[in-house]
Amino acid sequence: MSWPEGTPMLHNAAARFARNVEAMSGGRFSITVDAPGRHKAPLSILDMVRSGAYEMGHSASYYYKGKDPATTFFTTTPFGMNPTEMNAWYYYGGGLELLNKVYVRHNVVAFPAGNTHIQMGGWFKKEIKSVQDLKGLKIRMPGHAGEVVGRAGMNPISIPPGELYTALERGTIDAVEWVGPANDVKMGFHKIAPYYYTGWHEPGAELHVFINKQQFDALPEDLKKIIAIAAKEVSFDMLSESFYRNAIAWEGMKKQNNIKIRTLPEDVLTLFKKANDELLDEVAEQSQLAMEVIASQREFLEKAKDWSSITDADYLRLR
Amino acid sequence: MSWPEGTPMLHNAAARFARNVEAMSGGRFSITVDAPGRHKAPLSILDMVRSGAYEMGHSASYYYKGKDPATTFFTTTPFGMNPTEMNAWYYYGGGLELLNKVYVRHNVVAFPAGNTHIQMGGWFKKEIKSVQDLKGLKIRMPGHAGEVVGRAGMNPISIPPGELYTALERGTIDAVEWVGPANDVKMGFHKIAPYYYTGWHEPGAELHVFINKQQFDALPEDLKKIIAIAAKEVSFDMLSESFYRNAIAWEGMKKQNNIKIRTLPEDVLTLFKKANDELLDEVAEQSQLAMEVIASQREFLEKAKDWSSITDADYLRLR
Repeated sequence: MSWPEGTPMLHNAAARFARNVEAMSGGRFSITVDAPGRHKAPLSILDMVRSGAYEMGHSASYYYKGKDPATTFFTTTPFGMNPTEMNAWYYYGGGLELLNKVYVRHNVVAFPAGNTHIQMGGWFKKEIKSVQDLKGLKIRMPGHAGEVVGRAGMNPISIPPGELYTALERGTIDAVEWVGPANDVKMGFHKIAPYYYTGWHEPGAELHVFINKQQFDALPEDLKKIIAIAAKEVSFDMLSESFYRNAIAWEGMKKQNNIKIRTLPEDVLTLFKKANDELLDEVAEQSQLAMEVIASQREFLEKAKDWSSITDADYLRLR
Repeated sequence: MSWPEGTPMLHNAAARFARNVEAMSGGRFSITVDAPGRHKAPLSILDMVRSGAYEMGHSASYYYKGKDPATTFFTTTPFGMNPTEMNAWYYYGGGLELLNKVYVRHNVVAFPAGNTHIQMGGWFKKEIKSVQDLKGLKIRMPGHAGEVVGRAGMNPISIPPGELYTALERGTIDAVEWVGPANDVKMGFHKIAPYYYTGWHEPGAELHVFINKQQFDALPEDLKKIIAIAAKEVSFDMLSESFYRNAIAWEGMKKQNNIKIRTLPEDVLTLFKKANDELLDEVAEQSQLAMEVIASQREFLEKAKDWSSITDADYLRLR
């Protein structure tokens, strides 16, 4: 797996998948979970599974965008689908077929296998009141979302997790995006950066199980089905666990600290949306498959938005 | 199962569960799905499973509130948890344990196994502008929510599904609550009752698999696990299918018809909430277990509301 031993939710998801496959197969199929402490290559899981160094891996598709731009949006897309919409797309809107159309080229069978729920937008030392406040602001925000804020005038900086608190304290960075309360509370960011922004950049990051294609194809049908269903159960379960642990952690944090929840101002959101759309168009030009994935997500999102607005959004407002 | 052959989503959920259990067990475990056309007792699934007439059933817990008030809110609670919150409660907030604390008394092992997503509030011939418009209004709205609107001055009427369209057309009823676009479109209500109200009464109805306790206990551990995971997968999958099919159906309906989406006015919502809270307090007094279920849901909902408001609600607004 890509995650250090004991990472809340993420390690649980890998361990749960392994445990369930073993139990459902009556012990015929046994999976050992290795953390980066052992394999030393958290962001090379795909390579190791492709080559057969490992038969399986638990990782996130968007870590491999350097290798294949089409992999990026199977994890999440800024301003894109929330987890319920994403699952509808994966299982009924053609997403799972597209995922494997991409991964078969990497000699891998892939399954969605875990979701963080909507991530928070990060901790800021100063309030963002308009696009003027973005200029040169140093933020830890990796990947596609980092490119979006870079285009909007911010300065995205890559810093190892263990050095983030000190970097924020000393002003090496002005803001830091991490995950959500259950993970953030241990990092201590809220003690030195009180503005906690709501999320726009990772509306439910999906993790994945990768399996070497020759190894998977050689399995009997019942074990193939057990793996597929165990991956789907863990995708579902981690969303429930993430929601639960974040809701509980947030209740504790907000009571003990003076945290100021903020939504980014309209003009900033408009600028980010524009930068994101341009970036998506550019990625779509890099490969035919990336174009297919982006087009498929955009098409379903248009329909999903309307239905979500008269159900989920309306319900949370009227309740 | 409780559902007629071919009912969108619901029949699929039962069939999918049966298919996956058979495939994962390599054919050792085979499940035949009977519709009410065969067993003639759609609302007595619990009795048939308890007695062993069937080893298993697919139904909804709230159909059995006459038998045991504690069963009611495992399906859904008006103004209560949405599906994401409900799943967090079931799997991490003690819900699954409470479900089985209730059902063991009926000689049954129970699993959540399907979700309709947030249901729409129904079709009305005239617009509801204030509580004045509720008085004597005849509506098809069954169960606990029917009691809520009854207390608020409406007249909830029970009519068999096959007679609903004619009843609405002739004015025997003024409004009808059904499910959502994918199911509603076939009923044709939108042609004669153009006001389509957003939902407050069933924010994600959960279905269940019931299994006779002696039969379940006699199974080997691997088959027990296969059943538990297959039920959970179908709970997840039906939510995705419901979201997908409703989003697509809604797009088609709104383009071809002059449907007016409305949210109930503030004063009506306030009145319904008050009636619902009073009713919940009364049900809680009927049994110690009902009180436990209601208290557990209320306690988690308080925490979940806050987290949902800065994630799901905020995200759908800013996107």
